[in-house]
Amino acid sequence: MKLTFSPASPFARKVRIAAIELGLIDKIEFVPTTVAPGQANDEYSKITPLKKLPVLILDNGDVVLDSYVIVEYLDELAGGGKLIPASGPDRWRVKSDHSLLQGMLDSMLLCRYERMVRPQGSQWPAWADDHWNRAWVGMARFNDKPDVLSRPLDIVQIALACVLGYADFRFSDCGWRKAYPNLDAFHERMLKRPSIQVSLPPKA
Amino acid sequence: MKLTFSPASPFARKVRIAAIELGLIDKIEFVPTTVAPGQANDEYSKITPLKKLPVLILDNGDVVLDSYVIVEYLDELAGGGKLIPASGPDRWRVKSDHSLLQGMLDSMLLCRYERMVRPQGSQWPAWADDHWNRAWVGMARFNDKPDVLSRPLDIVQIALACVLGYADFRFSDCGWRKAYPNLDAFHERMLKRPSIQVSLPPKA
Repeated sequence: MKLTFSPASPFARKVRIAAIELGLIDKIEFVPTTVAPGQANDEYSKITPLKKLPVLILDNGDVVLDSYVIVEYLDELAGGGKLIPASGPDRWRVKSDHSLLQGMLDSMLLCRYERMVRPQGSQWPAWADDHWNRAWVGMARFNDKPDVLSRPLDIVQIALACVLGYADFRFSDCGWRKAYPNLDAFHERMLKRPSIQVSLPPKA
Repeated sequence: MKLTFSPASPFARKVRIAAIELGLIDKIEFVPTTVAPGQANDEYSKITPLKKLPVLILDNGDVVLDSYVIVEYLDELAGGGKLIPASGPDRWRVKSDHSLLQGMLDSMLLCRYERMVRPQGSQWPAWADDHWNRAWVGMARFNDKPDVLSRPLDIVQIALACVLGYADFRFSDCGWRKAYPNLDAFHERMLKRPSIQVSLPPKA
């Protein structure tokens, strides 16, 4: 299998961590891929018209997307029910919490594009603030869920670590550690895992 | 169960169509909800920090998101394997095709916000064009998949109908029918379903 990858993508990081934790990392070849908003990439557009990272290209040529579906696929490959509960109310809680974290990452990327990538003079501060606020309010919600932060590893914890790592990477002065001490303690625990350490984003 | 809903949201439309097709529509109370980019909505932010439509609020208070996870939940409630294959390679193809359509809708909304909602003078045309192009190239891909367009109803066909309906609603002069005749024929067939008819977006 091949995974289109960039060390700066929090979505690709999530899949990488999941693959390590599921014992599947050696089966995946990483394909360095660069995408940028507002720029064409005809080659990658043929693989996925969305031009987003990551996608998983199976040996039969099938392309699996998005990052969550890839994790579901890998989880099934590893026997099922490892990072996502196989059934019951917890299955829907984990899926919903993951969707929230995925949306928080989407909003953080939109906020970054708005403040740091978009041409000077065309900013819309209310848009950037709104999206940052979604991520910030989302962090507060997880800060208040000690059970989610302390249970055995699952996709919610992995995605939350990716949110916090992305906050350090692109919004280093946002002050999440001070505002959310439970998340700080959670992140410190997560950093003891090799999968989390090895996948830390590059220096901004 | 309660579903936060707006007739203008293609994501809410997808869930509504799925609920009708799964025979579950009578179990869902629709809660009219208004969200707008760049505007606070503290009440809805408490339900979902992302402030996106729709979410499904279960009778025990659990909140299920996003629209895809809601469809998965309803599909399981209806017995499983109805709109999403329960196993095998087709399961991942359907999930991946749905993720592509979901991303196309995200891009169409971003394109609309850029061209029609963002304050005058702060547009970034390359961004809007890039996102429109993702949706347009994605449509081409489905236009070239006659098997997907003609098989029994599934979540991919429902999401594709929502993409095309949203194109009519917000980009009425984009010319998708002329560019993609197979999608035109598919959409005409889909319009014969009451679930598709009743959920058509309002006049723009």
